[in-house]
Order: sequence, then structure tokens, then C-alpha cells
Amino acid sequence: MKIGIVGLGLIGGCLGLDLIAGGHEVYGVARRQATCAQALALGVVTAASTQLASLRTCDVVFVCTPIATIVPMVAQLAQVLSPQAVITDVGSVKGALVEKATRQWPRFVGGHPMSGKSEAGIEAAERGLFEGNSYVITPVTVGGVETDQGAIALIEKLAQELGSVVYHCTPAAHDRAVAWISHLPVMVSASLIHSAIDEPDETVRTLAEKLASSGFRDTSRVGGGNPELGLMMAKYNREEVVRSLKRYQQRIAVTIKHLEAEDWEGLAKVLAETKAARGRFLG
Amino acid sequence: MKIGIVGLGLIGGCLGLDLIAGGHEVYGVARRQATCAQALALGVVTAASTQLASLRTCDVVFVCTPIATIVPMVAQLAQVLSPQAVITDVGSVKGALVEKATRQWPRFVGGHPMSGKSEAGIEAAERGLFEGNSYVITPVTVGGVETDQGAIALIEKLAQELGSVVYHCTPAAHDRAVAWISHLPVMVSASLIHSAIDEPDETVRTLAEKLASSGFRDTSRVGGGNPELGLMMAKYNREEVVRSLKRYQQRIAVTIKHLEAEDWEGLAKVLAETKAARGRFLG
Repeated sequence: MKIGIVGLGLIGGCLGLDLIAGGHEVYGVARRQATCAQALALGVVTAASTQLASLRTCDVVFVCTPIATIVPMVAQLAQVLSPQAVITDVGSVKGALVEKATRQWPRFVGGHPMSGKSEAGIEAAERGLFEGNSYVITPVTVGGVETDQGAIALIEKLAQELGSVVYHCTPAAHDRAVAWISHLPVMVSASLIHSAIDEPDETVRTLAEKLASSGFRDTSRVGGGNPELGLMMAKYNREEVVRSLKRYQQRIAVTIKHLEAEDWEGLAKVLAETKAARGRFLG
Repeated sequence: MKIGIVGLGLIGGCLGLDLIAGGHEVYGVARRQATCAQALALGVVTAASTQLASLRTCDVVFVCTPIATIVPMVAQLAQVLSPQAVITDVGSVKGALVEKATRQWPRFVGGHPMSGKSEAGIEAAERGLFEGNSYVITPVTVGGVETDQGAIALIEKLAQELGSVVYHCTPAAHDRAVAWISHLPVMVSASLIHSAIDEPDETVRTLAEKLASSGFRDTSRVGGGNPELGLMMAKYNREEVVRSLKRYQQRIAVTIKHLEAEDWEGLAKVLAETKAARGRFLG
């Protein structure tokens, strides 16, 4: 298959490596000529160009640019692709863009490969990043027309070739679910760090920094990550993140109540429930 | 040195293994004869007994029983030890017990080796658990008398033999610091799980369970741990945990405000600060 990748960062680069290994021809597009040269040198593309027109004959194009630019990019691709081509994206929010992108290109399929690593950029690209991880596909109905089954099947097939586990759901369900398991944890974790550094007693603050170990390390990890990523989640999934934060805030208030009332039975019940429930999330 | 260990669980067992390896004689006391036999079989003690009187000639005794029983245990030990003996504990809160224990035994030194693992019990005991980890010693002044310098030096020397990094601070500073880096994370993390399982939309809840990956795994780890441990922290460090939870609650409220007002600059500033600050905790 002839596959286009627009945006040669970490995800675009990893896709290219795996798709080439799977026997596909991969045409990369980046804004900068230097990135094109790097992509060719790293073997993540078969050919690279700064021009979208180079994707004219592709069967499918993965848009791997930042979320804000996905819909405009689909509109630009609509000027050059053949009508049978499928466009998909890898954005980590879907409600803000899938319907809009589908209006630009009827054979658009919203996608979210739930893989990543802490390093960014094409130089961090590696084989097998998607293997064993979830890949969410979010069909929509726009103007009474459902996302084309053939287009969905094509993206699903490629996701399976990458070794991913494919899930289908609406953009709204996707955004609400990732608010719980991905976006809320970032805010919860960042707020933990932020409250600890606000400790006014310097002796205690310095001691806390020295004594912090695995519990603090794990709970604070995603809140101490790439600020751009956290900001993007908040911006493009704002309503769902606020909703989950408000429900979370209620749980914190209940915990404070248990402690203030010395309701140890109530707290024990919560902690037993959370211990049991965690296994369902990471089964 | 002749060293007693009362309470042969994970920490008592690990202490025994390392102290024997360091050339000390280790006398273990457990409530049950079966635990004594197991301790001997595992080589974590030189001798074992169900009787405290067996520790009569020990130079130092580590009390490794649950927090609620530490002060009563010190009172019992006071009946059998020689006046020069030092008693220390390994409890993870200090304010609730160090002064009380010191009133029972003037040569009591509060200690907190900040090491652990997810498995409990003597069968999980291993060499080197304390190596490279913090060991907090919390001297006090009771009735105008400071904790004896010789007694402190003895515990510090043993902690260093275990390979730990020793810190000295007041019980109050210890409890406030561990509220931030150990107890608050448990509540924050448990509340994350608890709010996610309260999602009323079953489709979303099931999807969230399926999609949860490393971000949720790490942020939820300590909240899905041993409920007894979380309960113990809450009970014995109640005031500090409530204080940290309330400050944390304010940070969550600020985050919600940033999102509701679409104050992306404000949120970006917080996320950049937390990213920078995390390194200080885990330097």
C-alpha cells in the first residue's frame, strides 16, 4: 500500500518504521527539508518531501501534526488526494476534530493510537511502539452519513498490523474515557507537586524533597511531564477534563470528611474499593 | 552487638538479615512460635522466642510491631532491659509515639527507615532493603531532657551499616514531610481511582478500564495498595494528612479555575513549575 505520513515527529516516525517493515511504501511530508533528510537517513520513510502534493497517489494518509493543525491539514490534503484515499489522524482528543475533519474529507477516520514515550521527535522513533497497545477508532455520522465502513476497515487493518488492540467508540466516549485515565491523572499529579512546593515551612519542604521516594515518584510522574502535552489535553478536552476534575474534587472532599470525622470504617471501605477496582483498569 | 528485634514481619525480617550479615547477634521475638521457627529457618535471627525476657541482655532493641502497639511494647520492654539498652522503632509516623515512648524509656530513639516493598511478612524478607534509602531519626526533648546523644549515635551507626542515608529532624517535621511525599499521594491516588469508578456512563467506564495504561497505572499505584497501610497513615498522622489534603484541594480548585477561564497561560505556568520542581524531589 502507498501510505502518506504528514508530520514526522515521534508518532509519525514510529508509524513509518513499522509500516515500512510491514512492506508498505511510506511517503513522508515535513515542513522542514532537514527533517525530510533525517527521516530518510533514519529509514522511517521511503521518500520525503516538504510538499503535500507528493502524497497525490497515496491510498491512505496519517496526519501526525499537532492537534490544532489537524483539521486545516485535512482541508489542504483534500486539494491533492484522489477521492478514494482515506485520511486518518493520531490526535489524542477526538470530539474537537473528527466531525470537522469529516466535513473536509468524507473518507476521514478519526484514530488514536494510545502509545507514546517521554522523548519527543523523530530521533526517538523506534520499532514496535504500538505493539500490544490500544488503538481507538472513532467513526461519526455527519450530515446523516456514517463514516465509510471500507475506510474504517482499512485503518483497523493497519492498526492490527502495528500489533495494536483496536477499539471503536464515539469521539465523545473516547474523550470522556481518556479524561479519566489520561488527562485527569496529569492534573491530579501536577497538583500534588504544586501543593507540596507551596509548603511554607522551608525545613519541611527541604526534608520532603530529600525523603521523596517511589510513592511520590510514581504519583507525580505524569504531572511532571511535558507541559505542552498537559496544556493540549486541557485545551482540546476542556469540558471533559473539568467534569472529571469536579467529580474528583468531590472525592477529595469526602476523604477529608472521613479523616476529620475519624470515620475509619468509611475510609477503610474506600481504600478497599480502590484496591479492588484498580485491577479492572490494569487487567 | 546483641540486637533484639520485636515483631518479625517484613521490616523486622529484613533488619535481621542485614544485621546478622554485619556480624551482629540478633534475638527475635514474635507472638507466635511458628513465626519464631520460620525466622530461624530463614536465617533472619540468631535465636528466637515468644518471650520479651529473652532480650534481657540486648544492647539495642528494634520495635517493629504495628504503630498502635509500639508505645505499649516499649513499656513492656522497660520491665526487662538493662538501663543502658537503647530502644528504637521503625514506625512510619513519629509525633504520635516518640515522646510517649521516651517517657517509658529515656534511651528511646524514634526512627523511620523509609524502605518497603509491596509484599508483607517475614517470607518477603530480603538482604539490602535499606541500602541507599533514607533513614530518619527523630530526637526529642521530654521533661527538659534531650534524647541521649550516645543512643542517637548508636542507631545512626546501625542505620549506616544498613547502607541508609540518615536524616535527623523533629517528629513534627518528619510527620509533615511524609504527609506530603507519602501519605497525601495515597489519598490523591485512591481518590483518582474512586472518582473514575463513579463514572455513571457504563460504556465510558468500561472503555476507560480498557484504555488505561502507564499514566493511570503510575498515578493510581499507591492508591490501589494495601488499605491497612493507608488507614494507618490517616489515623496516626491525621492532622498533617488533613492539612496537606486541604492545601491540595486548593490547588485542584485553581486548576479548575484555569480551565474554566481558559487561562492557558496560567495553566502553562503551573505545568512548567511542576515539571521543574519534580526534579528537586527525585534528585
